Amino acid sequence: MTLNIVSLQSKDYSFFFGKSEPVLRVKPGTVVEMYTEDCFGGAVTGPETLPSQVCVFPFLNPVTGPIYVEGAMPGDTLAVHFIEIEPARDWAVSSTFPHFGALTTTHTTAMLHDPLEERVWRYDVDKKARTVTYHATKSGYSVSMPLDPMHGTVGVAPGGFEARATITPDAHGGNMDTPEIRKGATVYFGVNQEGGLLAIGDGHCRQGEGEVIGTAVEAAMNTVIVIDLIKGIFTPWPRIENDLSIMSTGSTKPLEDAYRISQHDLINWVAADSKLDILDALQLVSQAGRAPVGNVVDPNYTFVSMVDKKYLPTKEVMGGTHGKLSAIAAEYRKGK
Amino acid sequence: MTLNIVSLQSKDYSFFFGKSEPVLRVKPGTVVEMYTEDCFGGAVTGPETLPSQVCVFPFLNPVTGPIYVEGAMPGDTLAVHFIEIEPARDWAVSSTFPHFGALTTTHTTAMLHDPLEERVWRYDVDKKARTVTYHATKSGYSVSMPLDPMHGTVGVAPGGFEARATITPDAHGGNMDTPEIRKGATVYFGVNQEGGLLAIGDGHCRQGEGEVIGTAVEAAMNTVIVIDLIKGIFTPWPRIENDLSIMSTGSTKPLEDAYRISQHDLINWVAADSKLDILDALQLVSQAGRAPVGNVVDPNYTFVSMVDKKYLPTKEVMGGTHGKLSAIAAEYRKGK
Amino acid sequence: MTLNIVSLQSKDYSFFFGKSEPVLRVKPGTVVEMYTEDCFGGAVTGPETLPSQVCVFPFLNPVTGPIYVEGAMPGDTLAVHFIEIEPARDWAVSSTFPHFGALTTTHTTAMLHDPLEERVWRYDVDKKARTVTYHATKSGYSVSMPLDPMHGTVGVAPGGFEARATITPDAHGGNMDTPEIRKGATVYFGVNQEGGLLAIGDGHCRQGEGEVIGTAVEAAMNTVIVIDLIKGIFTPWPRIENDLSIMSTGSTKPLEDAYRISQHDLINWVAADSKLDILDALQLVSQAGRAPVGNVVDPNYTFVSMVDKKYLPTKEVMGGTHGKLSAIAAEYRKGK
Amino acid sequence: MTLNIVSLQSKDYSFFFGKSEPVLRVKPGTVVEMYTEDCFGGAVTGPETLPSQVCVFPFLNPVTGPIYVEGAMPGDTLAVHFIEIEPARDWAVSSTFPHFGALTTTHTTAMLHDPLEERVWRYDVDKKARTVTYHATKSGYSVSMPLDPMHGTVGVAPGGFEARATITPDAHGGNMDTPEIRKGATVYFGVNQEGGLLAIGDGHCRQGEGEVIGTAVEAAMNTVIVIDLIKGIFTPWPRIENDLSIMSTGSTKPLEDAYRISQHDLINWVAADSKLDILDALQLVSQAGRAPVGNVVDPNYTFVSMVDKKYLPTKEVMGGTHGKLSAIAAEYRKGK
Repeated sequence: MTLNIVSLQSKDYSFFFGKSEPVLRVKPGTVVEMYTEDCFGGAVTGPETLPSQVCVFPFLNPVTGPIYVEGAMPGDTLAVHFIEIEPARDWAVSSTFPHFGALTTTHTTAMLHDPLEERVWRYDVDKKARTVTYHATKSGYSVSMPLDPMHGTVGVAPGGFEARATITPDAHGGNMDTPEIRKGATVYFGVNQEGGLLAIGDGHCRQGEGEVIGTAVEAAMNTVIVIDLIKGIFTPWPRIENDLSIMSTGSTKPLEDAYRISQHDLINWVAADSKLDILDALQLVSQAGRAPVGNVVDPNYTFVSMVDKKYLPTKEVMGGTHGKLSAIAAEYRKGK
Repeated sequence: MTLNIVSLQSKDYSFFFGKSEPVLRVKPGTVVEMYTEDCFGGAVTGPETLPSQVCVFPFLNPVTGPIYVEGAMPGDTLAVHFIEIEPARDWAVSSTFPHFGALTTTHTTAMLHDPLEERVWRYDVDKKARTVTYHATKSGYSVSMPLDPMHGTVGVAPGGFEARATITPDAHGGNMDTPEIRKGATVYFGVNQEGGLLAIGDGHCRQGEGEVIGTAVEAAMNTVIVIDLIKGIFTPWPRIENDLSIMSTGSTKPLEDAYRISQHDLINWVAADSKLDILDALQLVSQAGRAPVGNVVDPNYTFVSMVDKKYLPTKEVMGGTHGKLSAIAAEYRKGK
Repeated sequence: MTLNIVSLQSKDYSFFFGKSEPVLRVKPGTVVEMYTEDCFGGAVTGPETLPSQVCVFPFLNPVTGPIYVEGAMPGDTLAVHFIEIEPARDWAVSSTFPHFGALTTTHTTAMLHDPLEERVWRYDVDKKARTVTYHATKSGYSVSMPLDPMHGTVGVAPGGFEARATITPDAHGGNMDTPEIRKGATVYFGVNQEGGLLAIGDGHCRQGEGEVIGTAVEAAMNTVIVIDLIKGIFTPWPRIENDLSIMSTGSTKPLEDAYRISQHDLINWVAADSKLDILDALQLVSQAGRAPVGNVVDPNYTFVSMVDKKYLPTKEVMGGTHGKLSAIAAEYRKGK
Repeated sequence: MTLNIVSLQSKDYSFFFGKSEPVLRVKPGTVVEMYTEDCFGGAVTGPETLPSQVCVFPFLNPVTGPIYVEGAMPGDTLAVHFIEIEPARDWAVSSTFPHFGALTTTHTTAMLHDPLEERVWRYDVDKKARTVTYHATKSGYSVSMPLDPMHGTVGVAPGGFEARATITPDAHGGNMDTPEIRKGATVYFGVNQEGGLLAIGDGHCRQGEGEVIGTAVEAAMNTVIVIDLIKGIFTPWPRIENDLSIMSTGSTKPLEDAYRISQHDLINWVAADSKLDILDALQLVSQAGRAPVGNVVDPNYTFVSMVDKKYLPTKEVMGGTHGKLSAIAAEYRKGK
């Protein structure tokens, strides 16, 4: 197998998903090596650099891209497989942010309280040991947790005439903040604009479910993806596949509606691909499914609903795209 | 008083709020006469023209504009006073629409039900009698209701790099669908982009609170506005003022958060302008306020919170803009 | 007409809706004169008496009753018409309360903020002038507003084996906190337990829509009601009727679901009583209806959806009960 | 170690949590062997027995109990450790139910759609192979999934004067429907009434996250628990502990508020027991935590927030109760 590998090291970031001049054009099947900056644009490096002081709205949550995929037209599906997501530095940061997070008044859950204290935590990243290390700020406590790199923000240009800030997840993807977008995952997006216009950012060394404080262990990443195109099939909400499971996402508020979207899409997907009656699919997913919450802090909240392929009549979905891209990923890794 | 009157009869509609080429440039103080098409683009004329068949996504809910207001810069406030909103035809329509409305499964409150039946109601509009007449479709019942024209969609370009479909209300205004935007109201918007980029559409001959079916008595309108600019003051969410009351809007989901936003903004507005302690303002609004719901059907829901000026220490807000524009409106009417 | 008048001046209050020993048994058609204590049990009299210090949970929001209505059986409807609701004192109070209100973190919208400051406002009540007078606590500002007495809490025993705190509104009524329950209103409840077990409390001299601070202008009341029984018809959610309008209530969270319940019930009510097709009823209510929000602060939120009877094919609903009880009310007032 | 073992095989079920006559009185430390009936009271045995026809409201979701724990007083915490949860039969059932489930209109998410089709699925339960087997109803597809028995409903009498249907989860526990209440888990409840009044029911052979269809793989269970009492410490929301993790639950609507409650309680718990600053605890849980959703179908929705003990400064919480009860469980199993 001969791989088509392109390196995209541009630091000319984008801050929205929508129609804009692509920084790269690739053919389906291309491997793209890229660098993504963290959600603070690299400006927050420790306790002295408070996000509200060093970041300037709307220049938050930079994404690398957009990438124009040749042949991608509205009604198609773009597939993105993550070959590598590797922290670019030996440190990472997390923080509170005024009026942002699940346990604080925000601009939409508007209350008369003052914002919580703004504070930054700096983590050590040990790529050899595959750990990140937390340090308490008000005591000497430290603890290491597994490194589990992921991208919080992955998406394409939205439909209609819309452009959306990278901070917001919706049907086009965006800031879903789910740990399921890790190495080995294939993510599917319905194409709304010619070329799809894929962009990626907001790397996390790890993240808890819901991202309650509002930020994860934020890091710049060296990421490698392979892109594919599925012609003539539209994916209404972002879907994810890995070796074990298929998943649908939903992003809206209130949170039960995000759950509903993701379950509704997963059940319809299972019914269609497995030729199961819709209520039979509902019953099966209801007992076999898992539903890890993505974020409960962004302008829309995200749920992921998933079921293991071993429980389904049909093990191969989306025309076998995940298997095909996994093979390219294996070939790429062999070459390194 | 010499009025500066401009006629904008362009039918080159826009379908989003965002940065785009203005169709008109005016100075603050200008009266603008305009025509707005109905939310269906005029394509739905009766029971035979089902919206899902005659309308093409995303060409829904056309707005007239955008209008560039000279001198408007981010951080300022644009004021729009409605001098006239008058139905352009002697009929209007309303309808169900698949997966749209408060009492049906939608794309975000996703369920396994089929959509409700799509159906169109045609209303008679009697501008002399000032009535609209409802006709039941499955029986001979008819009833007339007061004509109370309003605009469902009024807004400016959003902040950041965003562009939003006209169907969605948010901090930039948009499809708030509140009957409070009627003749005699002044609406205030924070300016996010140079020129403000005001656009108006979605005329309703009348609308119930919440717009439960998803559409109002939809009509093309001949509308006259006068525009003003308040330099150096930013309005975080659209505000409305009429001779009796001041109002704040909030648009998000869930609906309690839309209520929170509108109350939070109104209370802060009262406290600031009336120099009341914030809890004193909260107490006063809590007992004197009203809170008519706008819509519970659009991608964001809208609440309006209001208090009568007679209960406030300070009767004049926003630098007296409403009084000034009302005087221009009176002058304009005298000239007709 | 000979009136059957009973005086219930017991101060043996109840703190829940459920099966319990009635304090009074009446026949349908009986006029009941009663005294209700305020939501603080009369313990809060001014700024020095903070609710969290002088009130003891769960002895909050006392209701007078329950009243056993002879002949009332599950599946029937109890009708309660308010003949008089008159403040018992020349003062009333309102307050913040820790972790209670729409613009503060609560026990369910749980956040890491400290509670807002607890503060009490004392109002003057002028029954001759029909006003209540607000006094700011941090400045000298005062203003009078119309006296508009209402009961926040009216309900019957819930279904199943449940007992609910008086603070919570649900399908059995309870703490709906809607200003629509004023003099001249008839309220309908589905009977869940033998005798219905009606109880009333939480008088307000007036209240804004949503009760944003968490309390209204709280007052003890001298209240006169007349009770009726509609056999064989069950009312799924509390309904209200006055001379102009019919209304349905819904109490749940999130707030859009409270709106949905109240609209769904109103539209089904209109369709059934007026023999309109259900979508024709939906269309009519959508354009003619109003929807004043009740509370956005209690354990469930309450919406009221209403339509004026003049727009309906059938002007007389619920077997003409409202007219019949209004006639008794008129007779009672004549006798005074 | 001498075990105090009591067998409670009463089939005199209860249908609410509240003050009622206990069926058993035990001392802390007692092992109780019990039988629980399924949520349908055993009346649904296959496709021919539709729940809405064979079950009678409010006799749904029977619980075994209540058990009075000697010495338990308001302000204490009751601990319940699950030694065994074992299906009592070789079959189990699941079903749709009219107006119940996450993807259908309900009595509170009220819409104008007809209910989804009511249908029953019968599962084979193989206790040796530790599997349950699903059978599609409209095709020949079958698949086995791991048996993972749990109790959907566990709770104590609520506070105040309330009694709650067993179908509703809230601060007293109840129908939380989380798979985390499995063998080996210790569940903590704040005591609101003398004796605590513990009751257990609604066994599931397994359940997906969210219980989207509204029912799990429902089964009668032979269950063994050991009960303990922690004096002088109150648990505001049910907490769960197993060998690896500590968890807090929250049950309310909308779903983000259930998430908030569970995160808020977990973070305060971590901060208090580990003597971490509250924002340090927030940061740690935000990166290390998981948050499996319980149910999105009951009258309140349930979230569980958890963190592994290995990440905490203090590994022993709640006075070491879990370890102590696990030791009793081990002793009990040895004796069998």
